[in-house]
Amino acid sequence: MIFAEILAIGSEMLTPFRLDTNSLYLTRTLEERGVAVIAKMIVGDVQDRIIEALDLASRRSNVIICSGGLGPTIDDITKEAAASFLGLPLELRPDVLVTIEERFRRRGLRMPEGNRRQAMIPAGGTVLPNPNGSAPGVYLESKGRQFFLLPGPPFELEAMWEQYGLPLVGKDRPLQRLVLRVAMLPESKVDEMLGPVTGRLRATGYTILASPGEIEIHFLAPEDSAQELASAAEETRKLLGHHVYAEGAQTLEEVVGRMLRESGKKIAVAESCTGGLLGSRITDVPGSSTYFERGVVAYSNRAKVELLSVPEETIRRSGAVSEPVARAMAEGIRRLARVDVGIAITGIAGPDGGTAEKPVGTVFVGLAVEGNETVVERFSFPGGRNRIKFFSSQAALNMLRLRMLKGD
Amino acid sequence: MIFAEILAIGSEMLTPFRLDTNSLYLTRTLEERGVAVIAKMIVGDVQDRIIEALDLASRRSNVIICSGGLGPTIDDITKEAAASFLGLPLELRPDVLVTIEERFRRRGLRMPEGNRRQAMIPAGGTVLPNPNGSAPGVYLESKGRQFFLLPGPPFELEAMWEQYGLPLVGKDRPLQRLVLRVAMLPESKVDEMLGPVTGRLRATGYTILASPGEIEIHFLAPEDSAQELASAAEETRKLLGHHVYAEGAQTLEEVVGRMLRESGKKIAVAESCTGGLLGSRITDVPGSSTYFERGVVAYSNRAKVELLSVPEETIRRSGAVSEPVARAMAEGIRRLARVDVGIAITGIAGPDGGTAEKPVGTVFVGLAVEGNETVVERFSFPGGRNRIKFFSSQAALNMLRLRMLKGD
Repeated sequence: MIFAEILAIGSEMLTPFRLDTNSLYLTRTLEERGVAVIAKMIVGDVQDRIIEALDLASRRSNVIICSGGLGPTIDDITKEAAASFLGLPLELRPDVLVTIEERFRRRGLRMPEGNRRQAMIPAGGTVLPNPNGSAPGVYLESKGRQFFLLPGPPFELEAMWEQYGLPLVGKDRPLQRLVLRVAMLPESKVDEMLGPVTGRLRATGYTILASPGEIEIHFLAPEDSAQELASAAEETRKLLGHHVYAEGAQTLEEVVGRMLRESGKKIAVAESCTGGLLGSRITDVPGSSTYFERGVVAYSNRAKVELLSVPEETIRRSGAVSEPVARAMAEGIRRLARVDVGIAITGIAGPDGGTAEKPVGTVFVGLAVEGNETVVERFSFPGGRNRIKFFSSQAALNMLRLRMLKGD
Repeated sequence: MIFAEILAIGSEMLTPFRLDTNSLYLTRTLEERGVAVIAKMIVGDVQDRIIEALDLASRRSNVIICSGGLGPTIDDITKEAAASFLGLPLELRPDVLVTIEERFRRRGLRMPEGNRRQAMIPAGGTVLPNPNGSAPGVYLESKGRQFFLLPGPPFELEAMWEQYGLPLVGKDRPLQRLVLRVAMLPESKVDEMLGPVTGRLRATGYTILASPGEIEIHFLAPEDSAQELASAAEETRKLLGHHVYAEGAQTLEEVVGRMLRESGKKIAVAESCTGGLLGSRITDVPGSSTYFERGVVAYSNRAKVELLSVPEETIRRSGAVSEPVARAMAEGIRRLARVDVGIAITGIAGPDGGTAEKPVGTVFVGLAVEGNETVVERFSFPGGRNRIKFFSSQAALNMLRLRMLKGD
């Protein structure tokens, strides 16, 4: 087994505002080669901290990847720290200097003196060209360990790594990851439904990752046991049935979009508490203009009457957040937009506006499909305003998906 | 100076799908007490890895905070690893066991046998109650170091830390952070505008954090140099002028919302390429129903005609993405909703639909304010579909803000 670890270097990475997202990208590429990331570390631009991290990492891992600290300023000391740790001098590499100077000249600029530092490379190091920036990367081998020094900006790191870094990393038994996605089911319910086979699934690297309104079920196994992976996924699909909405990286709006496109149906939405979020998610999908006709955000009662023909009497009698209003909104938008499907959301996103009978989180979703009876579901969502908005849009998309699965 | 480091424990934290977001929260609370986070580490549920991290951390930091690995399953070994590192036995704490059993009983459940493990505490440890879950936390002192073992779920970690953990951490010279926010200005432009004073600003921990459409300018200094901080911020405000839209944690939609509320003005929006995102952002603000009357997502040309009274002739002549259509949409929504302000967005979010004359990223934003001439601005945004949508909504909010600043 090849072990790797990832070291993010940069004082801004220790503020309350920045996370080391490069490590997610690096982990994914390593996983595909069968290399396991066993630790990640994040330190500032401080020589002792960098050396301590390199020391710990190289005692247990074969591949050590550093990101950040290759810039032209005196704060950037990753190469100095790595050279010092490995007992190597830094050398000016004329070929690298020429490349950097050339980069500036092409933009009609003189290279600032500080950028000379970027041409200093630990002795014996291989230069990794930077297709998207001036900082070259460095590859070093020492005592059977592979060290990679990569730039911090993701745009630069990813291009350099893919082209020049990753191919140098040894291959083990490559791993394959298979992901099933489930919408609007709590984690405990998924656990319960999969209970009978959980033991068997664990052998295929089964993990559940839960986020609000969405569960991912991951399987991870060596590529040569693809058969076991497929049958574990098959078994899971059988137990969870229509709750599984996709395999792989698709979003719920992409899945719903594909179903709409394939069926040739057009849709329009009427939103209240979600304020446009449902429309925004539907139109996040490229090509959505072929099936999304319009949306209406009827935030005020007047807008519900004027834009959706919801009878004033219905609002007065049942309240704007109610089954009859959700029904009238869904039917209204479908009729007025002259489309096949109308979806409506009305609810209380809070923090104010809740009552004993309809507390914050109460949401009605209406679904009007041509030639079918309109359906309204009532939900009670936990959490704050933004979470309730997201849950509501998720519930609406999932209702539509389930309805279309039935062939309506 | 008190140094801290943060250790996130859990094998799922080493997948390509999870980041240690708890550390951002913890860093913020520590910063307010003048405690500096000097490193972060992330390891799996593996005893050797946890011990190596504790060892490195305790050699250089006063405060070591672990999150995760306190659950009831045999995978969860944080307490075992910490006890082993400190040479302490684990002891069953009857009072803790009673609390956990009680928690299950209240929900009408019998405590599963596995949860007994959660009552095992390293000898001499102080139990940190968990207001939001069954896993108690642990506080240990050893060799002048403070060790905190906290649960992984943010909801549990934050409640426990704030009430029981943080008060035990020593206070140093507390730091104060001051943040200025700038919308729709590139980082290089901010750099240039602040050029003359950058040297002086650095003394107050000046940093620029850039994300698409948004720049944060941070100052960080000990509380007792609040005066220097204030005058650095003042100087920055003077140089950047109206580009600074807020101080602190406010979002652009919150700032615009406050201006609308204070002026008593009502607003309605007409969106095309943003698909509802502008309305969704405006309604992310609690209480937005007092000023947001309605939105229309006129994705199809028919919807632009029917819902906004955009003349068909204008669309035919100039195209749906054009100055005249943005103008007609803004004036149309303002008139039909009978509000003070109408905003409209029409553009090409891509990846398809671009032309030589109007490439992907071309966006027109119209602003119609009662008693004023309607203004339309043309933008050319870089990036993919979602980034163009975000930039467009950001530009619209910022145009409205600048207009209201002028008192219109």
